Amino acid sequence: MSAELRVVAEAARSAQRGLAGAAGERRTAVLCRLAGLLAEREAAILAANAEDLRVAAAEGLEASLLNRLALTPSKLTTLIEGVNTLAAGADPIGVPLRRTELDDGLILEQVRSPLGVLLVIFESRPDAVIQIGSLALRAGDAVLLKGGREAVASNRALVGCLRDALADEGLSPDAVAGIEGRAAVHALLELDDCIDLVIPRGSGALVRSIQESTRIPVLGHAEGVCHLVLDAAADPAMAAALAVDGKTDYPAACNATETLLVHRDFAALADVGAALVAAGVTLRADATAGAMLGEVPWVPATDADWRTEYGTLDLSVAVVDDLAAAIDHVHRFGSGHTDAIVTDDEAAAEAFLRRVDSASVFHNASTRFADGFRYGLGAEVGISTGRIHARGPVGVEGLLTTRWLLRGRGQGAGEYGPGKRSFTHRALKA
Amino acid sequence: MSAELRVVAEAARSAQRGLAGAAGERRTAVLCRLAGLLAEREAAILAANAEDLRVAAAEGLEASLLNRLALTPSKLTTLIEGVNTLAAGADPIGVPLRRTELDDGLILEQVRSPLGVLLVIFESRPDAVIQIGSLALRAGDAVLLKGGREAVASNRALVGCLRDALADEGLSPDAVAGIEGRAAVHALLELDDCIDLVIPRGSGALVRSIQESTRIPVLGHAEGVCHLVLDAAADPAMAAALAVDGKTDYPAACNATETLLVHRDFAALADVGAALVAAGVTLRADATAGAMLGEVPWVPATDADWRTEYGTLDLSVAVVDDLAAAIDHVHRFGSGHTDAIVTDDEAAAEAFLRRVDSASVFHNASTRFADGFRYGLGAEVGISTGRIHARGPVGVEGLLTTRWLLRGRGQGAGEYGPGKRSFTHRALKA
Repeated sequence: MSAELRVVAEAARSAQRGLAGAAGERRTAVLCRLAGLLAEREAAILAANAEDLRVAAAEGLEASLLNRLALTPSKLTTLIEGVNTLAAGADPIGVPLRRTELDDGLILEQVRSPLGVLLVIFESRPDAVIQIGSLALRAGDAVLLKGGREAVASNRALVGCLRDALADEGLSPDAVAGIEGRAAVHALLELDDCIDLVIPRGSGALVRSIQESTRIPVLGHAEGVCHLVLDAAADPAMAAALAVDGKTDYPAACNATETLLVHRDFAALADVGAALVAAGVTLRADATAGAMLGEVPWVPATDADWRTEYGTLDLSVAVVDDLAAAIDHVHRFGSGHTDAIVTDDEAAAEAFLRRVDSASVFHNASTRFADGFRYGLGAEVGISTGRIHARGPVGVEGLLTTRWLLRGRGQGAGEYGPGKRSFTHRALKA
Repeated sequence: MSAELRVVAEAARSAQRGLAGAAGERRTAVLCRLAGLLAEREAAILAANAEDLRVAAAEGLEASLLNRLALTPSKLTTLIEGVNTLAAGADPIGVPLRRTELDDGLILEQVRSPLGVLLVIFESRPDAVIQIGSLALRAGDAVLLKGGREAVASNRALVGCLRDALADEGLSPDAVAGIEGRAAVHALLELDDCIDLVIPRGSGALVRSIQESTRIPVLGHAEGVCHLVLDAAADPAMAAALAVDGKTDYPAACNATETLLVHRDFAALADVGAALVAAGVTLRADATAGAMLGEVPWVPATDADWRTEYGTLDLSVAVVDDLAAAIDHVHRFGSGHTDAIVTDDEAAAEAFLRRVDSASVFHNASTRFADGFRYGLGAEVGISTGRIHARGPVGVEGLLTTRWLLRGRGQGAGEYGPGKRSFTHRALKA
């Protein structure tokens, strides 16, 4: 198994170099061809998906998962539009980020380059094959796509479109490969010399188990324990609105608010609590917060609550003595995903923005804004709570690295030094 | 051991957050104080170093290592100048990289932020304590410094200066910690939840053994198998000069040329070979290259030669049929560090620059230019052959990450969507 997968990964690397070395117009042509194939093969794709749905329903998959698994003509249209948007966008490869004259006739350039070979692991939604696959092609990366067992026929049909689009434009189809079976994932996670980045898209448990079983860098987040801090100077109506939006807009999302941290001098917790309860939220409060909630119903929080990503309409509520205590709580119990403060005190807001060590830090805005689409990044690769390479919502830049290009006239390093030539190090327009 | 080191690493994280949250002027003040302490304590530092040198000489450490271990008043002056340069430079923290209006009164900013907690592992040179320590402080990072056993007294004296500089400016000294003993390194490499980046500075064997024993990201390079390609259209004199410079300027450096790849139509290999041999180089050639070398002495290369970083005046020489074969050889046997082509054919040069998948790719320049100082990056953290986070010579940017800050007026995510408000996603000046 491992030897076979090494062959697949090495073929992907080789094909990736061909893809990366091709002119940008050829990668654009591949994307256009992909959009065309998705339209041409609509009936076959939907038939494959119907087969997956039939098996999944017979196996008793729950309705929400069936919903995620289902492809429809309208979902396919959305996918095709996404591919066309990428095709119409600028080719990122070779874009200079920095240019420096090292000396007369010795020009250094740092340019964007493909990252290499990606391993993407996702659950249920077959849409991910095209969303991630097309992003990878735009970035000049190869991608090994491991989908869920329940979507195997759909994924095969969609991977076939990606591979055929490459082949139809004269590039090696091996830059895209479908991977099936859990054992294959385990074997691939060993190949840290062949694979540059793993992107798991799924539950926190999936992400954590992958992070714990590979030396390949992992882009993603295991948890989103996001806090909303209600400062002493928080506007009560805004506090209530942002707590309700953060918790209830989409409770299963990683950027949903899980903990309300309340300054002991914030006077309107009972009103905020009432608004939350009216929206269906269960408050899990510490004793001080409970006392401040007055008539509003609550249940006692345990220590485990502060670290819990509920994914439901539960919300923990703790009272803190001051802003420093709120920030300490965020650092101690949070996951570094997204944390927000509500306050009319600009100094408190700026201190919070400066001091909270999370990927996204907000003032007077809902934690739910932490999202690649909302940030204007275009397609989202994922949200990273890692501190290396990419942090927070990640767009196509997360699939790129850089190279340094130096163009000279035959200069040797021995010509420079004390008593010899000096470098000019003049910044040029990139 | 592991529990104690966890305490050290967690204290470093906590101290790092204080350092990061402090105003930039305070980090500058720490650097100024550090420069002052190094001057004030010159006698004590040199005495500690003399003790290390005495023990090392008694243990029979070889002269080149003693040389690297030795501190002198002039080396200390250089270190102090480096610290003062960093202190005079701009504070990188909080610098905006991107600003976007998401909607009226909803402004997103991506800003530079400290990476977190670094573990730096280095050999012999105690200068590294101050070079890396001061860079880390400028970047707002905490740093655990593990030096060689032979420099233990010197390192303690220098780590003491870093810690005292922090304490003297009212910041926690725990942002810098000296680590001693190999067992401690092994234990720290397990703490992937406490340490964000490992930077090994030393032999390829050291780097490889660390890469293989941790899940923490490692910034560095195990090998530098750098190629110089002599194209059919290479100028013979330039080819000879760049081969000699690349191989002999400093053979032990990672950016030294290890393999000459010669286009079969390049007519002047005998002249290039003669120049190399005159410079003391041993040519390890394949049979075709041997034939082209004529009277120039050479020894037969074995398959192992193509993957070997000699670090000496040995140079492997292979003949290739064309540019594509040269690039294939580089990808197959190289280490992705630095590869260069000599040619007067602009199309060949641009194809090489576009297609070679290495951190640094050069045209008509010596591989020896791949270096942070020569690139104008200021102090060099290291040279990375990894593709994630930082690639090639890495300056202070490699010690930084980013955060996303969003400033609003109470907006909730539920206000946006089909039939509701739309995002403007207007790029603002950063």
